[in-house]
Amino acid sequence: MKVKQIVLSSRPKGMPTKDQFRTETFTLPALQDGEVLTKALYFSVDPYMRGRMNDAKSYVAPYKVDEPIVGGGIGKIIETRSSGFQKDDLVQGFFPWATESVHKATTVQKIDTELAPAPYYLGILGMPGLTAYFGLLYIGKPKQGETVVISGAAGAVGIVVGQIAKLKGCRVVGIAGSDEKIKMLKDEFDFHEVINYKATSDMRKEIKDACPNDVDVYFDNVGGSISDAVIANINFHARIVLCGQIALYNSTEVPTGPRLQPMLLTRSALMQGFIVSNFKDHFSEGMEQLSQWVKEKKLKYEETIIEGFDKLPEAFLGLFSGKNKGKMILKV
Amino acid sequence: MKVKQIVLSSRPKGMPTKDQFRTETFTLPALQDGEVLTKALYFSVDPYMRGRMNDAKSYVAPYKVDEPIVGGGIGKIIETRSSGFQKDDLVQGFFPWATESVHKATTVQKIDTELAPAPYYLGILGMPGLTAYFGLLYIGKPKQGETVVISGAAGAVGIVVGQIAKLKGCRVVGIAGSDEKIKMLKDEFDFHEVINYKATSDMRKEIKDACPNDVDVYFDNVGGSISDAVIANINFHARIVLCGQIALYNSTEVPTGPRLQPMLLTRSALMQGFIVSNFKDHFSEGMEQLSQWVKEKKLKYEETIIEGFDKLPEAFLGLFSGKNKGKMILKV
Repeated sequence: MKVKQIVLSSRPKGMPTKDQFRTETFTLPALQDGEVLTKALYFSVDPYMRGRMNDAKSYVAPYKVDEPIVGGGIGKIIETRSSGFQKDDLVQGFFPWATESVHKATTVQKIDTELAPAPYYLGILGMPGLTAYFGLLYIGKPKQGETVVISGAAGAVGIVVGQIAKLKGCRVVGIAGSDEKIKMLKDEFDFHEVINYKATSDMRKEIKDACPNDVDVYFDNVGGSISDAVIANINFHARIVLCGQIALYNSTEVPTGPRLQPMLLTRSALMQGFIVSNFKDHFSEGMEQLSQWVKEKKLKYEETIIEGFDKLPEAFLGLFSGKNKGKMILKV
Repeated sequence: MKVKQIVLSSRPKGMPTKDQFRTETFTLPALQDGEVLTKALYFSVDPYMRGRMNDAKSYVAPYKVDEPIVGGGIGKIIETRSSGFQKDDLVQGFFPWATESVHKATTVQKIDTELAPAPYYLGILGMPGLTAYFGLLYIGKPKQGETVVISGAAGAVGIVVGQIAKLKGCRVVGIAGSDEKIKMLKDEFDFHEVINYKATSDMRKEIKDACPNDVDVYFDNVGGSISDAVIANINFHARIVLCGQIALYNSTEVPTGPRLQPMLLTRSALMQGFIVSNFKDHFSEGMEQLSQWVKEKKLKYEETIIEGFDKLPEAFLGLFSGKNKGKMILKV
């Protein structure tokens, strides 16, 4: 079977462009016992994938040049040689950027579209939702009445973090980069305070005004000078959850900034980097709780859906110019 | 009773000098019920005291101008109006820089000079020892076979951290700033590797060579570019214990350096600032364990003793030019 796939044509230096991707035709191998063949329906594009385009030590192996990009995806089974799956089952897993693909049956999971629409399993009920859940609750450990600040608040992870923090009785302050996102956070997600970092000349003061009792938990998706402004306002025993640093992913030189250690030291504060798979032993707990909240309508979700397999690179690149409200999804 | 005392005459900008201190005569108030009068025997001078000379939010209140400097001290009771103490008892506590001083009996503790010499209670069996114990074991959580790197390794806290890490079966790498200190760490304290940061042009490579399996725990007393070099070599799930930042205490501008968040993020690493009093509920456990190790001769100690009450400012200022091997003590 001939399929269309998108490979990494070269490693980017700095901000990636469409030149880093190449579409080609590929012949799938015959299905083996224990495998399933899927037709791709949805792909997840996520900021962490930028890191895999570099040839550097990180928590996931780098993509290989001339091989397909791989990311979260949802597909429909069109052929199965595994007793665990039937034709037409919808499954999620790590999918190569290809119109059809072959998977070991043990690497995909069925999804329940009665509970939530399919793309939710790439967002609030997938990696971003679990990232929000574990990062906030296991590292941030917010207590009732505390102030939680979120950068990249209108992104796939940020909007879940904010809602969970509200469920825990916290004051929630969101930072985002457009009036449209700010309006969404305020009107649809009821954040207590919102700051458009592109519309202020003094972030440090904006944070101070929005957080009269200082910042107890900072959930950081962004990094850079936004984080400097937040960290200048942390409280004693603050927890800084490092989830993403999208402002820095495309840096070609080592970015510099104010040294943070004196602030962390004088505030007895914690800063912890993580990746969701650190918590894999707790995934079932996380999924159960998130599903429960979705079912009870305590958690809402927001997606930006771009259509057309060929637009995968465009959807991915859009993450770095803030094109998405909520989760960026590519619908095939 | 007239006593000599040393007050803060003005707040320093940058590196403090002797001009920040003034010696004066002071008349002690009459002893009240529940109080003891002590003659000072030893004073502890510690890097954290630099922070208290600033008028800034921190974990301890700033010193007041024209009032005595206060720090750890040991005194002999020369008059008591508390049934808990007798004349000639040796006690430790927070002492003003004065030849004699009055204390509420509840704020001083008797010391046991059978177990260890008096100055030990300002060092290995005092605040620095507890700082090493809790910072390393409660935040650093070293596991057998892991690599522990210590900056300011020849200081009051560093030499205890290194020995405890060795007791826990770790590979211990110490960084210090003179050949004499390096020799002491190697010959007297049996550190596995030692690095004189003043004698190398490429700290990053020195750390890499000394830590073939990367750095699992970094116990940081120093900050600045030494820390940059260590953090460039951290392992996945590394723990960075922020105990001191002596390289930065006298900065007059916000120091800048490479942003650490990308490294912490891609390594799922933790950075935690602390002060020993965060662990006050566990002090008795810490003291018991440290005393036990001292008794069993599993922990040794090193002191630099300067004599003469009037030399208190000089002893304190010497901390910032690395004059001390081990704990800096002023003997009255």
